[in-house]
Order: sequence, then C-alpha cells, then structure tokens
Amino acid sequence: MMTQKEKEKLFEETKILTGFCEEDKANLIALSPVMKKYADPLAEYFYDRLHRLDTTKAILEAKPGREAHLKITLIDWFNNLFAGNYDINYASDMMQIGQVHVAEKVDQRYLISMYGMVFQFIISALESEYEGKLAEIEPLQNSVAKILSIDMAMMMESYFLELLDSTGWSMTLLKKMATVSISKKLKK
Amino acid sequence: MMTQKEKEKLFEETKILTGFCEEDKANLIALSPVMKKYADPLAEYFYDRLHRLDTTKAILEAKPGREAHLKITLIDWFNNLFAGNYDINYASDMMQIGQVHVAEKVDQRYLISMYGMVFQFIISALESEYEGKLAEIEPLQNSVAKILSIDMAMMMESYFLELLDSTGWSMTLLKKMATVSISKKLKK
Repeated sequence: MMTQKEKEKLFEETKILTGFCEEDKANLIALSPVMKKYADPLAEYFYDRLHRLDTTKAILEAKPGREAHLKITLIDWFNNLFAGNYDINYASDMMQIGQVHVAEKVDQRYLISMYGMVFQFIISALESEYEGKLAEIEPLQNSVAKILSIDMAMMMESYFLELLDSTGWSMTLLKKMATVSISKKLKK
Repeated sequence: MMTQKEKEKLFEETKILTGFCEEDKANLIALSPVMKKYADPLAEYFYDRLHRLDTTKAILEAKPGREAHLKITLIDWFNNLFAGNYDINYASDMMQIGQVHVAEKVDQRYLISMYGMVFQFIISALESEYEGKLAEIEPLQNSVAKILSIDMAMMMESYFLELLDSTGWSMTLLKKMATVSISKKLKK
C-alpha cells in the first residue's frame, strides 16, 4: 500500500501535469449547484451503458440490489467532484475506489472506458446548461477534464498497487524485472 | 502477452462501452485534414508540460535527442488518431505504446494525466477551428473522446500485462490472489 507521503506525491504530480490550479477549484465549486440535477441522469446513463456488455452486465447482476447500491455510490462520487475539497482525503477516497474495483473484479479496461463516457456526459450537460456559450463553457470543461484525469490517475494507481500488494512484491522489484524483460523483447 | 483473440476482445469491449460507431469513424476521418496543423503545436505543448515535473523532465533529458525523437512519435500517434483505420492493427499499435512506456520506465500516472491534457488541447483546437459553433463541435468532440478512451484502455492494458509478463505469473492467478487479499482488507 501507499504511504501518506506517496499519496501526496502522486496527487501533487498529477496536479502539476494536468495544470490543476486555484481557478479550476473555483470553477468546480461554481459548478456544484448546476451539476446536482445531472447526478441521477448520469447514474442511469452510466449503468445503462454497462448493460450493453455481457461481462459488465454480469458483474452488476451478480448480487441482488448491487446496481441500485452502485448508483448511489456513483452519485456520491459525482457530487464529490464539485465539492471543492481537493486534498489528501480526496485522494484517499479516489484510491479506495480503485481498491474496491479490484475486490469486485472489475477489469481496468472498463474503468478507463467509463471515465471517457462520464466526461462526454458532463460536457453535454455544460453545453445545454450554458446554452452553447463557449466562452463560459470552455474554462469549465477544462477544469472538469483536469479533475477527471487526476481522479483516474489516482484510481488506476491504487488499482495497480492493490493487485501488486497481494503478491508481496515491491513496485521497484517489478519495474526492474519488467524493464529488463521488455527491453529484450523490443530489440528482437 | 495477449493473443490476437484477446486483443480483439479488448478492442471490441472498449468500443461497446464508449459507444464507438461508424459515425465516430466518419467524424474522425473528416477531422484528419483539419487536425494536421495542430500536430506540431500539440507536440510542443505536450513536452513543455512534461518539463514542469522533475521526474518526467529527467526521463526526457536522460538521452540526447530523446525529446526530439519523442515529438515525432507523438505527432505520428496524433495523426493516426484521425487516419480512420480502427482495426486490430490500430489496437496493436496502441498496445505497443504501452510496452514502450514500461521499457522507458514511465509511470502509468503520467500517461493518464497526459491523455487528459491531449483531450483538452483537441477540444480547444475544435473550438477555434469551428468558430464556436457547438452544433458542429459537439459530435466531433464526442468522437475524439471515444477514440482517446479506447486508446488509453488499450495502452494501459498492455502496460499492465507487460509488467505482469516479466513475473511469469498469469493474470488469472494475480486476480485470484488480489481478490482474496483485498476483500479481507476492506472488511477490517
């Protein structure tokens, strides 16, 4: 597992690379009341999409009540995107989401695909909400893109570390082995 | 490594989850001539951003000429997004990018952060190119969001499998171990 310090480093690095700043924080907070009414429709749309694929449909239907429960957690996550607390607790929450997906055997490919879908959904919401006024929409959607990238980077990192953790191996060891192995392969 | 069949499955699954269809393909092909002139500016912007972080800056500067070479590969990748060949060869190319990043010791957190940045860049390009006409921009940016999600899902999957491959362990074994380990942890 990651130490508090490693979590902070990860969070800071993703903020720097995405360019997340105070203006983004202010934009997301300003969106909070606007976005609340889109939480339920997003949850409907999101799980409807997951029904299109046998694998994800089977995960949803494996336990009675699971889908209804997941909709609530998705709505919480969505509202939290705009809650303005982008601190280490936020990072920890995101990382726990990664862990849960390992526990529930959801492949990372599905997580990544669904992030893209959420982003599209939010952009459409912004476009109808701000009646096509691009000057208003553009900075807002940039802030949304940044927080979603940060979220995804943290979630995927914890997902990966969680899988690794069960082996008892360190990331350093794994990376060393992989670098040797792949360099040989690519030279072939 | 993945078999041809597994690659095809991954590609199909991500297409279904993102909702990628013939219309998206047509949109991306239509964008090809429009987007060509943004390839160089994107490469400048992309590597400029990577200079903001000591870790990624060090990777770029580790070998003379590396950054110039990487700019060329980024431009190829970008142009390929709009080339219209979304077949198994496309998937294989994306997956090789994942392998290369393992070989070059680039952490997945950086890859994910930078995908977000590329998407923002393309949206801004669309907005200036179509002079703020949302009715034209919206379907195009949706298609871009889909292909980037598909790309990222494939790249991250190959990245992950490449790391795993060096251990000689199977994904099935790793997942079984992880599920047991994490379920216990979350119940605590």
